[in-house]
Amino acid sequence: VTGVPLGPGAEFDRVRAIAVALGSAAAGLGDDCAAVPDGTGTLLVSTDVSVEGVHFRLDWIALEEVGWRAAAAALSDLAASGAEPVGLLAAVVAPRDATDRSVAELMSGVAAAGAAVGSPVLGGDLAAGSAWIITVTVLGRAARPVSRHGARPGDGIWVTGSLGGARAALEAWRRGEVPTASVRRAFARPEPRINAGRWLADHAARAMLDLSDGLAGDASHLAAASAVGLEIELRSLPRAPAVGDEARRLGIAAESFAAEGGEDYELLVAMPAEFGAAEAAELRATTAVPLTRIGRVVAGDGVVLTLDGKTVTARGYDHFR
Amino acid sequence: VTGVPLGPGAEFDRVRAIAVALGSAAAGLGDDCAAVPDGTGTLLVSTDVSVEGVHFRLDWIALEEVGWRAAAAALSDLAASGAEPVGLLAAVVAPRDATDRSVAELMSGVAAAGAAVGSPVLGGDLAAGSAWIITVTVLGRAARPVSRHGARPGDGIWVTGSLGGARAALEAWRRGEVPTASVRRAFARPEPRINAGRWLADHAARAMLDLSDGLAGDASHLAAASAVGLEIELRSLPRAPAVGDEARRLGIAAESFAAEGGEDYELLVAMPAEFGAAEAAELRATTAVPLTRIGRVVAGDGVVLTLDGKTVTARGYDHFR
Repeated sequence: VTGVPLGPGAEFDRVRAIAVALGSAAAGLGDDCAAVPDGTGTLLVSTDVSVEGVHFRLDWIALEEVGWRAAAAALSDLAASGAEPVGLLAAVVAPRDATDRSVAELMSGVAAAGAAVGSPVLGGDLAAGSAWIITVTVLGRAARPVSRHGARPGDGIWVTGSLGGARAALEAWRRGEVPTASVRRAFARPEPRINAGRWLADHAARAMLDLSDGLAGDASHLAAASAVGLEIELRSLPRAPAVGDEARRLGIAAESFAAEGGEDYELLVAMPAEFGAAEAAELRATTAVPLTRIGRVVAGDGVVLTLDGKTVTARGYDHFR
Repeated sequence: VTGVPLGPGAEFDRVRAIAVALGSAAAGLGDDCAAVPDGTGTLLVSTDVSVEGVHFRLDWIALEEVGWRAAAAALSDLAASGAEPVGLLAAVVAPRDATDRSVAELMSGVAAAGAAVGSPVLGGDLAAGSAWIITVTVLGRAARPVSRHGARPGDGIWVTGSLGGARAALEAWRRGEVPTASVRRAFARPEPRINAGRWLADHAARAMLDLSDGLAGDASHLAAASAVGLEIELRSLPRAPAVGDEARRLGIAAESFAAEGGEDYELLVAMPAEFGAAEAAELRATTAVPLTRIGRVVAGDGVVLTLDGKTVTARGYDHFR
């Protein structure tokens, strides 16, 4: 099988089936970005599809936010590679009765998310279909791209920002309520951690990925790709506002809620052991992005999640469920 | 309005609406590929979406052919830029009940079309939805990329291969019949003209695009982008087999049928006046692709189509109709 080893999950079984079918026609599937050698370093490319009714609903967020979110999700893959954005392309399938104005509204959101990190809209495609579907492809460059493999026993495991916000918004909408402004924003306008990703790459990041499927699932991909084990203490997780309330309603621990929530687009990164609180403070001073140590890399395989030292299980967020 | 001027059509009105909404956040929309300066020349990128029920039907072609066709359509944009492929990415939306095997079959077609022109699968994304939708993004490089602008009065207008084959297959399917093998192949397994595009770029091509919307429509884009007029004599068009039969059934001239048919993925190119039959023969000897002179570039604007010297009207193929 070609490509980077992946953790468990139905979507990843499908990726493995594709990798087997393609054999040598596929190169390096399974990392956040594809890497192409380039005269001035490495070109990083990633493509990301957002489907109405699966990734978003229009009774929850506006078309401009759908566009922002689709672009931010793709740009987040560049962030995880420590890349500087070059630009993006957007292929939009619009319902047959959509107006030119509504398509332009969606594309305004795509363009705004790109412009926020210096990534212009380079091109795109349009088609008619039965629902809104947006595929955003991003291009970036990095002198030293960071991948998912490279974590070593002894490294610290860190995470940017806070977790569980997007899930808290989803849970509120599913109950028919309106989420608070801050968790709504976490879902509708996630900020790709481009500057933090570049800073971490410049400061010897060993392995990195972005949290699109939730910490519990994505950590297993980093462990599999690096052929190491991870130990993560859930009590350390930085939790988004409203996570406590939402977890209580579901009757689960706030820490598990945060670990299982998808689509936060924060970075999970393995840093050398000597990287500590002083360095994290420097990142925050430079980029305004908090960085929290949540665990460590060990010899072995798999991910062990603990809550106050006691092993717990948590599952990833899977759009195929 | 940013971007390359486009000819008339509902899809292009929408592109114009997007360009107005995005302003400076969009760079150069409207050419076949986006061009990004690169240490070793120019990086060319294009994205192309294929929608079940709009661009293809699964009672007509197999999933492997859907994948081939989606990749070939995107690679054809690289051909039109005179670019050498670097690789491609494929984002696939599969119906909820699709098996891993059927997704792998589709991706095998994508990979085969890429492998045929040296373009490996670099990455992709998967999601579930209500129909099959494939977005293929291609990357290529060119020392001197060819765009749609650059045609000058006096240039000859040439076309590769033959026209109307894909439309002949569609008409047969719509009647409930089975198309002949050669026109079926024109629809299901179009060959992106990568080698011909590179040869033409190396031989001073002034302006080039690929015929996805049909000659009648696409010629107007080349004219608008180059700020020139085109005169095309339809009697000169190289016609695919079965075009005569299909046109007779519809009660129209075979030449109009060929000019209006979309999705042939042949190249339309403006060459300097001194480029002639001997040079076209050299292209054919090198790449096995025939090249036919069908008209010329004149001062002015718009496209004049003639049949035996008499002006005729023909319309482009528009997925939005």
